[in-house]
Amino acid sequence: MLANKCQTVFSVRKFSRQLFRGHAISWKRCLAVSLAEEPKKPVVITEIPGPRSRSLFQELNSIQQASSVQFFADYEKSVGNYIMDIDGNALLDVYMQISSMPLGYNHPAMLKALADPVNQKIIANRPALGVFPGKDWPDKLKKILLHKEIAPPGLSHITTMMCGSCSNENAFKTIFIWYAEKQRNGAPFTKEEMESCMTNQVPGTPRFSILSFKGAFHGRTLGSLSTTHSKYIHKIDIPAFDWPTASFPAYKYPLNENVRENQQEDERCLAQVEELFEKYKTEKKMPVAGVIAEPIQAEGGDNHASPEFFQELQRITKKHNAALLIDEVQTGGGPTGKMWCHEHFNLVSPPDLVTFSKKMQLGGYYHVESLRPKQSYRVFNTWMGDPSKIILLEAVLETIRKENLLHRVTTVGDYMLKQLTSLQNEFSTIINSIRGRGTFIAFNCVSPELRDAIVKKLLNKGIQAGGCGTAAIRLRPALTFTEQHANIFLDTLRSILKQQ
Amino acid sequence: MLANKCQTVFSVRKFSRQLFRGHAISWKRCLAVSLAEEPKKPVVITEIPGPRSRSLFQELNSIQQASSVQFFADYEKSVGNYIMDIDGNALLDVYMQISSMPLGYNHPAMLKALADPVNQKIIANRPALGVFPGKDWPDKLKKILLHKEIAPPGLSHITTMMCGSCSNENAFKTIFIWYAEKQRNGAPFTKEEMESCMTNQVPGTPRFSILSFKGAFHGRTLGSLSTTHSKYIHKIDIPAFDWPTASFPAYKYPLNENVRENQQEDERCLAQVEELFEKYKTEKKMPVAGVIAEPIQAEGGDNHASPEFFQELQRITKKHNAALLIDEVQTGGGPTGKMWCHEHFNLVSPPDLVTFSKKMQLGGYYHVESLRPKQSYRVFNTWMGDPSKIILLEAVLETIRKENLLHRVTTVGDYMLKQLTSLQNEFSTIINSIRGRGTFIAFNCVSPELRDAIVKKLLNKGIQAGGCGTAAIRLRPALTFTEQHANIFLDTLRSILKQQ
Repeated sequence: MLANKCQTVFSVRKFSRQLFRGHAISWKRCLAVSLAEEPKKPVVITEIPGPRSRSLFQELNSIQQASSVQFFADYEKSVGNYIMDIDGNALLDVYMQISSMPLGYNHPAMLKALADPVNQKIIANRPALGVFPGKDWPDKLKKILLHKEIAPPGLSHITTMMCGSCSNENAFKTIFIWYAEKQRNGAPFTKEEMESCMTNQVPGTPRFSILSFKGAFHGRTLGSLSTTHSKYIHKIDIPAFDWPTASFPAYKYPLNENVRENQQEDERCLAQVEELFEKYKTEKKMPVAGVIAEPIQAEGGDNHASPEFFQELQRITKKHNAALLIDEVQTGGGPTGKMWCHEHFNLVSPPDLVTFSKKMQLGGYYHVESLRPKQSYRVFNTWMGDPSKIILLEAVLETIRKENLLHRVTTVGDYMLKQLTSLQNEFSTIINSIRGRGTFIAFNCVSPELRDAIVKKLLNKGIQAGGCGTAAIRLRPALTFTEQHANIFLDTLRSILKQQ
Repeated sequence: MLANKCQTVFSVRKFSRQLFRGHAISWKRCLAVSLAEEPKKPVVITEIPGPRSRSLFQELNSIQQASSVQFFADYEKSVGNYIMDIDGNALLDVYMQISSMPLGYNHPAMLKALADPVNQKIIANRPALGVFPGKDWPDKLKKILLHKEIAPPGLSHITTMMCGSCSNENAFKTIFIWYAEKQRNGAPFTKEEMESCMTNQVPGTPRFSILSFKGAFHGRTLGSLSTTHSKYIHKIDIPAFDWPTASFPAYKYPLNENVRENQQEDERCLAQVEELFEKYKTEKKMPVAGVIAEPIQAEGGDNHASPEFFQELQRITKKHNAALLIDEVQTGGGPTGKMWCHEHFNLVSPPDLVTFSKKMQLGGYYHVESLRPKQSYRVFNTWMGDPSKIILLEAVLETIRKENLLHRVTTVGDYMLKQLTSLQNEFSTIINSIRGRGTFIAFNCVSPELRDAIVKKLLNKGIQAGGCGTAAIRLRPALTFTEQHANIFLDTLRSILKQQ
């Protein structure tokens, strides 16, 4: 009976309103049931996109370039790990809005936070956080983002932003300011610097660079796009800074059968990093102030690199007096089984900066104290983040703790990797290179065309997956993904592979 | 009695919760009263920042560079045009979070929208709008952002983003894509272009530029910062593109006594624009693909330019086959008495793009159909805006319509300008150059020091104002600002000027 009532709450607007207006059932009991209300399995009743999605697409496409849209969703009805489309299909979502939904759809903890009138006031009164923060802001930053189980170990400072691109852009600025300050060695700005920067000229506007890696994705605004190298369609026709790009390891799988080759691959890439530091310092006169790297290159194809690679990258970066920025926009927030993927790497000291967004609800970056700008207004904008997202993040992090979700991610991820490895052995002419940490998992198909075909077949059998890189399929389920969900995915994939 | 109850609702958490859970008083009646609950006048009981603000500052400053913080606010208690700080001071806010709050604090229409469980689900389930938009998204875009009373006349296309910087960055990209496409003349991308862009090299990464103006502010990410030229502290030590910067008119006031000089000033600046188009095409080999301008340079000091200046700027831009982007991040959403400030300019055709953020709650840009990219994923990111902000924007725009706020802004603005002109005549050795449209008003003080002193005195008498440029004080009240509020400001300013 309770379950029925709650189900109704999550599907019928009118009833839901009644409930919110003081029904006898308490939020808590009702919401505890809601996760059980996921469909038992995917339900596909039309082709996807179905007729209603196709009709809405025409409407949207008449007012913007909308060709990237896959279908229109019904977010009132979507629940947990299942996304419902407007044609009545219920899809198991292992992609979760490009890896940005931490707990799945309509999670009770998030809905509960939003039903609180105090939180509604925080959302309605969005301040310029850098000038007039609310009375609870320092406490929220400390208890939520800087909580000892949440913040990357060793990083004491936090700057909030709104998205991944802006987080990387402002992390770059923080690096440049720190790097220039070291060169200035305590001296004040000169008149020439202050004047020349106003029209983008040296010395006030310095020729510094950020080193990034081939295959990387760090965002789409002009600074971050200059460090993005995953797909040409992201970059073509857009001006960019002439900054250095090193090779990122391209490993042979399975790793345990290719140890020596992969070590050599690490060495090859690290040698390039060394060369580029030198070349940009001496030849190009555009010294590398910082290095940016994803712990796992996500958009670029789920390219992993070894802990040893990152340890050595950190050593080289330090040697050249540059800062190491780990971009955890896609890996952060738990999907690798730790809050931050770089925690798997046993670095000898913390990275200098860690950027985040997506599952963290808002953007931002952690950094070591030594990178703190001396002056105000250097890293600044109107909003400096968004308190409404911290409210949601608080609910997310509490749920992660309460339900021990990082442990679940590790367990379910290990199970998936094991099962996928069996599948790979069985269908080794179709898929290969299974890899992952936690449920942040991918495998390659033998061709881009086959990858696209498998993703499409998965969709038509009720599973929303995503591609990345040239021929990879990536899994980005919510942290609430279980072995039961995994089995649905695995069985479906097996049935598709059998038909190839 | 009703008023009392409602007052309680807005100040006591417990009672408020009871009400939200189904009290007998309807939202509507209650909220209609709430605006009347503003304090009659400012109340200052401590120095500002007060002891509690100073204590919280220490806390915040230990985890981030926080020197830009002025005080900590109590947003639960703030109401309408009054911001309450945590030391118990009630300040008339004519700055409104750097011009970003359209209706003041705790506006009933916004709170009502957030109390709706359907909207709460929209907020909890934040989609990747470019891939899996919700079923109501096209309708929301059409009925809210593209509503005929809201969209800039002639602009049929809308792209949503999250902040002003990202809006300008993506508008730049849209311009570059369009400009390259014209040069390509229908030909497909070449292999060389597709490959070279991956490491930021020509021809795939072209040397195009955006022309901007001295004194401009267009944002803080690396692309938008390259077009920002308002204060050195925003720019120093940060790499930038070597793009052209023209002079923006610096008028002599009062305008009606300096007609010929100001015309000559327009001509001088426009001649520079022409020269820079040529220089960047022939000498620098970095053709100008677009021109960006604020209708009123806000951060740079509330620098106005004539309709004739903008008409001629549009003509020159068109002549050189470039796109004209009007940055309405600070001017958009009503403060000049029209939805968009450039509507005051009687341009012969619409600008090619108009960017917005701040009062519009989310970022984005309108553009003409001809700038629509042919391919998907060229202007793209994970979130592509935020449906939770559209919910708030809908409430804001409905309130603007229902309460005829643009008319109020015009009336109150005219009144303010008239009264300030009297003050200027009375205190002409202290303040000058009164200027404005609607309530988007500024005046200069005879020195930066005096400006800072007056802003501080205003604060200590209970008025939160803001500075801009070298020696200007800018007014950015909410659209709900009345003559009664104006009189409080004017009386306080007069009392301060008298003491100088």
